[in-house]
Amino acid sequence: MVSVIKLTLAYDGTDFRGWARQPRVRTVQDVVEDTLARMLGEPPSLSVAGRTDAGVHAAGQVASFPAPDEVDPVRVQRMLNGVLGPEVVCLDARQMPDGFDARFSATGRRYLYRLDRADLPGPFDARFVWYRPGELAVGRMRAAARILVGEHDFGSFCRTPERPGASTVRDLRRLTVRATGTRLEVRAEANAFLHQMVRSLVGTLVAVGEGKLEPDAMGEVLRAKDRSAAGPVAPAHGLTLLRVTYGRRGGRS
Amino acid sequence: MVSVIKLTLAYDGTDFRGWARQPRVRTVQDVVEDTLARMLGEPPSLSVAGRTDAGVHAAGQVASFPAPDEVDPVRVQRMLNGVLGPEVVCLDARQMPDGFDARFSATGRRYLYRLDRADLPGPFDARFVWYRPGELAVGRMRAAARILVGEHDFGSFCRTPERPGASTVRDLRRLTVRATGTRLEVRAEANAFLHQMVRSLVGTLVAVGEGKLEPDAMGEVLRAKDRSAAGPVAPAHGLTLLRVTYGRRGGRS
Repeated sequence: MVSVIKLTLAYDGTDFRGWARQPRVRTVQDVVEDTLARMLGEPPSLSVAGRTDAGVHAAGQVASFPAPDEVDPVRVQRMLNGVLGPEVVCLDARQMPDGFDARFSATGRRYLYRLDRADLPGPFDARFVWYRPGELAVGRMRAAARILVGEHDFGSFCRTPERPGASTVRDLRRLTVRATGTRLEVRAEANAFLHQMVRSLVGTLVAVGEGKLEPDAMGEVLRAKDRSAAGPVAPAHGLTLLRVTYGRRGGRS
Repeated sequence: MVSVIKLTLAYDGTDFRGWARQPRVRTVQDVVEDTLARMLGEPPSLSVAGRTDAGVHAAGQVASFPAPDEVDPVRVQRMLNGVLGPEVVCLDARQMPDGFDARFSATGRRYLYRLDRADLPGPFDARFVWYRPGELAVGRMRAAARILVGEHDFGSFCRTPERPGASTVRDLRRLTVRATGTRLEVRAEANAFLHQMVRSLVGTLVAVGEGKLEPDAMGEVLRAKDRSAAGPVAPAHGLTLLRVTYGRRGGRS
């Protein structure tokens, strides 16, 4: 019998060229699949909830693969953590009912973007925080965020549609801006995100905070369905995939 | 006229072979002196308060160098931060009266050692925290720390005396252990520290926490004046030089 093993993973994305396997570069999928191959005899094909880009981090990424029933998830977790070290950590491994798929069963993804406006950068969080000194009007950013929340065509916030003709409608359930001292945290939650959508949302909010775009222009930016209408894409290293949620059958990650 | 410029520096020590210049490896002193050389014409000879080892970090290292009066500390700071990036940050640069010396004028050094006992390591603080899973008896560690505080000959906590016949007496003013969840923070403050003294103190406290040494044995360990009487040296990457203090004339860092 074959069932599915669900992995919850955390990683520092700095030294990876993103999640997805690509020729001649080191990706998170590579190192996880190659480690699993030692145990399973051949590399499994991992389905993943968030195809994070180069430099993006994860605190709760979810991946899954079909495996014979006798494969023990506890051993899978122990082996991954024994081999991968602190750069990639398997927080949980469990057997799921046949039919579970990390990508297609997911009902929501939550991301965190961190930005620091201090006069000087901090050497201790440089890997995880976008250092961008200077004022930002947080009230304006929040006003823009409120307009962006909801089910919209986010074509203006997508670098390139993955397949021609694919829908760019997504349900953005949350987009909040929290300021603590010089630090800003943007949290975004949606059923799913387009390619570079969170970073485009953050870059657009920053443009609003800088006064380059008006909060009220957000409706127009959405209607344009054109990348050039939105602000620039914020740097990858400020972004962390926090958590993936699943419906009742898939459980919560 | 010649005065002295005092620099306060923070750095992520992970990718440096420590502070002190050495042939054929990259050290913090190298990159700071080489950057200053561009401005001054020749590399200054930096005096430093804490000669941090390979992998040790600093949040408030202090270094100083003699410079002609017309050298503007604001420009020095701006140039260092423009060239060095977030790995090394110059937090402050100021002119001090002639006679000030970062090393010899310092009256105290404060260090922080971080340790995590969680079941799994965290990928986001792996550079700054010693991951050491498993129980530690914190009460025993605190009892041992209380015995070690004071002016003692710390020969047992010194890897090698720097000069033959040099004193190994130091005034350890503070040694505290704070536990928050799975995290332990050891803070150590002294007039000055011997080579690897903080890490030897931490390693010894951990051995006490593991039950391998008794808190009451600390007097004996001190009296032995022998490296082998103490516990092992804790790994470098958990250690951060927090702050250097100066008397009234040198100001506080």
